[in-house]
Amino acid sequence: MNRRSFLKRFAAAALAGHAIPEVLAGGADKPRKPNFVIIFADDLGYGDLGCFGHPTIKTPNLDRMAAEGQKWTSFYVGASVCTPSRAALLTGRLPIRSGMCSDVRRVLFPDSASGLPETEVTLAEGLKSVGYRTACIGKWHLGHLKPHLPTSNGFDSYFGVPYSNDMDRVGGQGRQAFFEPRVEYWNVPLMRDEKIIERPADQNTLTKRYNQEAVKFIRSAGDKPFFLYLAHNLPHVPLFCSDDFRGKSPRGLYGDVVEEIDHGVGMVLDALRQGGLAENTYVVFTSDNGPWLTYDEHGGSAGLLREGKGCTFEGGMREPCVMWWPGRIRPGVVREMGSTMDLYTTMLTLAGAQIPRDRVVDGLDLSPALFGTGPSPRNTMFYYRGRRLYAVRKGPFKAHFITQPAYTPGGPQEHDPPLLYNLEHDPSEKYNIADKHPNVIADILQEVARHKSELVPGEDRLAARIQEQAQRGQ
Amino acid sequence: MNRRSFLKRFAAAALAGHAIPEVLAGGADKPRKPNFVIIFADDLGYGDLGCFGHPTIKTPNLDRMAAEGQKWTSFYVGASVCTPSRAALLTGRLPIRSGMCSDVRRVLFPDSASGLPETEVTLAEGLKSVGYRTACIGKWHLGHLKPHLPTSNGFDSYFGVPYSNDMDRVGGQGRQAFFEPRVEYWNVPLMRDEKIIERPADQNTLTKRYNQEAVKFIRSAGDKPFFLYLAHNLPHVPLFCSDDFRGKSPRGLYGDVVEEIDHGVGMVLDALRQGGLAENTYVVFTSDNGPWLTYDEHGGSAGLLREGKGCTFEGGMREPCVMWWPGRIRPGVVREMGSTMDLYTTMLTLAGAQIPRDRVVDGLDLSPALFGTGPSPRNTMFYYRGRRLYAVRKGPFKAHFITQPAYTPGGPQEHDPPLLYNLEHDPSEKYNIADKHPNVIADILQEVARHKSELVPGEDRLAARIQEQAQRGQ
Repeated sequence: MNRRSFLKRFAAAALAGHAIPEVLAGGADKPRKPNFVIIFADDLGYGDLGCFGHPTIKTPNLDRMAAEGQKWTSFYVGASVCTPSRAALLTGRLPIRSGMCSDVRRVLFPDSASGLPETEVTLAEGLKSVGYRTACIGKWHLGHLKPHLPTSNGFDSYFGVPYSNDMDRVGGQGRQAFFEPRVEYWNVPLMRDEKIIERPADQNTLTKRYNQEAVKFIRSAGDKPFFLYLAHNLPHVPLFCSDDFRGKSPRGLYGDVVEEIDHGVGMVLDALRQGGLAENTYVVFTSDNGPWLTYDEHGGSAGLLREGKGCTFEGGMREPCVMWWPGRIRPGVVREMGSTMDLYTTMLTLAGAQIPRDRVVDGLDLSPALFGTGPSPRNTMFYYRGRRLYAVRKGPFKAHFITQPAYTPGGPQEHDPPLLYNLEHDPSEKYNIADKHPNVIADILQEVARHKSELVPGEDRLAARIQEQAQRGQ
Repeated sequence: MNRRSFLKRFAAAALAGHAIPEVLAGGADKPRKPNFVIIFADDLGYGDLGCFGHPTIKTPNLDRMAAEGQKWTSFYVGASVCTPSRAALLTGRLPIRSGMCSDVRRVLFPDSASGLPETEVTLAEGLKSVGYRTACIGKWHLGHLKPHLPTSNGFDSYFGVPYSNDMDRVGGQGRQAFFEPRVEYWNVPLMRDEKIIERPADQNTLTKRYNQEAVKFIRSAGDKPFFLYLAHNLPHVPLFCSDDFRGKSPRGLYGDVVEEIDHGVGMVLDALRQGGLAENTYVVFTSDNGPWLTYDEHGGSAGLLREGKGCTFEGGMREPCVMWWPGRIRPGVVREMGSTMDLYTTMLTLAGAQIPRDRVVDGLDLSPALFGTGPSPRNTMFYYRGRRLYAVRKGPFKAHFITQPAYTPGGPQEHDPPLLYNLEHDPSEKYNIADKHPNVIADILQEVARHKSELVPGEDRLAARIQEQAQRGQ
C-alpha cells in the first residue's frame, strides 16, 4: 500500500468516525496522526475579532485563518466562567458531571483546596495514550496544587500562570487598579511544570512569552504527533501587553492585548507552515467565555449577542471560533452548533484514541461539518450557571428556565413557561416567542427530562478552601 | 503613448486627485474612464452581513467582495432616514444644505409636493457631463413628481418604486400587516422612466427584477463609461422576496431578503467580470441607514452599535460598506472614516468631472484610502436629525449635544456638557467620558462653530403636501 492509499484509508476511517489503528502513527514514511493545537483566549467576546465584525480591533491573522479555514458562528463553551469552561473543554463533559462547578464559588481561587478530579480523562491524557507529545502553555485554572496541575493531567510540560491574572491581588486602589494596572498589584505565580519560576509574573510579557513557548514547542516536533494547548491569560483584566503592541490599536489597551494574541496566532500558523506541518495539523481558536462587561472599555464586546461573561445569555457562552487545517477542512462559514466539548471527542477520534465509555461524554465528533461530508451532529446545548440548569437550546430554539444578570445585582428569576427565543432569527435574544410555540417548549422539556434522568452530578470541587480543610483537620 | 503608459498617467492623475482630461475617455484603444456602481440597500443594519459578523445571514457574495476589496468599518450616511440619506449620497452634501430634511416630516410621502431641488447637481448629472451613461434602478425617494424623478436628475433611465415600499398602504390589519405582508396591502407604483407600469408593484419579485435590470444595463455597456445606481427597496419592511429565496435563510424572512440582495451583488460582479469590465469598475455596497428596530425580527441588527434607524447613535448612521475594484484598490479593512457624500466627490474626481464650486460640498475624495497612498481625508462627521445638529464626531471622539430615542416615545434631550464617547475604544457608545476630556469638547465646539458659520440651511423640501398646496391655490 503506497502512502496515498494509506492516507485515503486514514481519512476514510476518520470520516466514518472509526478509530484509526495505532499502527498508522509515527515513522518517517508512514502517515502521521494529525497534530492538534487549541488556542484559547480568556474573556474574549463574540464581537472582538475583525472577522466577527469588530470595527477597530485588527486581527489579520485570525481573519486570514478564518478565510483559509472555517468560521463557526454558533460555537459554545461549557460554562460562562473560567474554571468550569476549561473543565468542559479538557474533559468533553459538562462541568456538572465532573463537579467543576459550584453555587458557592464560581471558579477556583488561590486558596482553593481542590481541582479537576483524577478520575477525569483529559484530552491530553487521551492523546498521550496513543503516542502524543503534549504541552500546556498559559492559564490552567483547574487546580494549582500538585495533583491537579497540567503535568498531573496528561501534559508533558507546563509553562504558565495556573489561575486568573487578577488573583493574588496585593496592591492598587479598588477598581482603579484595573484601569491603570501595574504588574506588582497582582502577585500571580508563573510556573514551569510544577515549579514557580517568577512571582509576580511579569504580565507585560506574558502573552509574548506564551507565543514564543508555543513556537518553540512546534519547532521541536519530532516523529511523534503533538497536542499543544495554548491558553492565554488575556484579555482577562487586568490588561497587559508587551511594548511591541502597547499603544498600537485604535481600540486602546484592550485592542493592543487582542492584537498581540492575534499576532501569536500568526506565529503559530507560520511555525506550522515552515515546519511542513500545516497540512497535518488541526488548529482551533476560541475563548473560554464572553466579555467581562462590568470592566467597561477594559472588557470586550459580545457583538450582537446579549450580555456577557457570567450569565447564560448568548453573550456569556457563545464564542468566536476559527478552525484551520489546510487541505483537509472545507473552508467556509459553519452556522451549525459546535462546542468546546466536541473538540475533545473530535480530536480523540481523529487520533484513534478511545473515548471513555464508563461515563457520559457530552462531546460529539464534528468531523462531518469539518470535512464537509454532513451537518454538525450537535443539535442541543445545555446552559448551566453553577450547578443549576438555566437554559437549553435545541435547534434554533432556546428556552430560558432561569435568567439572572451576569454580575449586576439581582438573583435568579424563574420563568414558567420559559422564555423562548429563536436564535437563528433573533440572535440577540430580544423577542420572547414562548406563547407561539408550546410544542417547542414541550419538546425542550422532554430534552431536559432525558438529560436529568442520566445526570449524576459530580461532587462540588470548587467550594472547598485550603484553610477550611486545615481547620477541619485540627 | 501605448495603452499601459496611458493607464499609468490616468492612474497617477487620479491618485493625485487631479481631474483626468476628458480626452482620456472613450474609444476602443484608449483608456476608459472608470465605471461606477453603487448598490444601496434600505434599512440594512451594521451587523447584517456575514463579513460584519452576522451569525446566520449568508452573504457569500458580499463576503467575497470584501475579501477581494475593502471592508470599511466606519462608513457613514448623511442622515438616519431614507430621503435625507439619499439626498446626501447623490448631492455630496449634508441634507440641511439642500433642504432635504425637515422637522415636520422625516421623509417624502406619496402626498409630498416637492423633492430634490433642481439647483442641486447630482452625481449622475456630474458624470453625465463628462460622457457617462447613467441608470437608476430601484428606490428613489427624492421626489416622485416629474421634476424630481431620476430622469430629471441626470439619469438616462429609471426602473423602480419611487418611494418606500411601506407607503400607499391600502390593506392589512395594523402592525400585523408587516409581519404577514401581502403585496396587495401596499399600492406602491413601479415606474419605468416617468411612467407607472405596474400598481401595486409585485414586491415579491422586486429585488429579483432590480438585479436583472442591473445585469441588463451592464451587459449593454458600449464605448461610454457608465454609472449604475442600484438602490434596493428592501430589506425595508414590509419584507418580500422571490420564491428562489423564500424560506431559505436560517435568519427567516429578513435573511431571505438580504440573501437575495447578496445574490444580486454576485450577479452584478459576475456581469462585470464576464464583460471584461471588472478592472475598470469601482463598485460600492452600503445602505441608506441603520436597521428599523421597532419591527422586531423583521428589522435588522446594528451589531455592536447602539440603536438603529432614525437616531443619531451609531446604529442609525454607520453602515456596513464594501468597496471593490480588482487590481486598483488595495484589499483590506479600512477603519478610517468615510461617508456616502464622499462617494460623490471621489467618483466625480476619478471621472474627471467638475465638483460644483459655487456651494459647499461635504464630500471628500477617498482616493488615498482606496488606493493605499494615504489615510482617508475624512476626520469629522456631523449627525443631524431633521434640521438640528445632534452630534459631531471628530477623530475617535463623538459628542452628543442632543439625544433622542429613534422611534420610541421621548423628546429630544439636550446635554451640556455633551455626552462624549471614544468610538474607537467604545463603538457601542456606552461609556461617557466627557468629564475626562474638556479639551476634546472645546475642540469639537470650535468645529461646530466653524460648521455653523458657513451653513446656509436650504428651504425645507419635505414638509409641503400636495393637498396643502392645492388648498393654498384655491
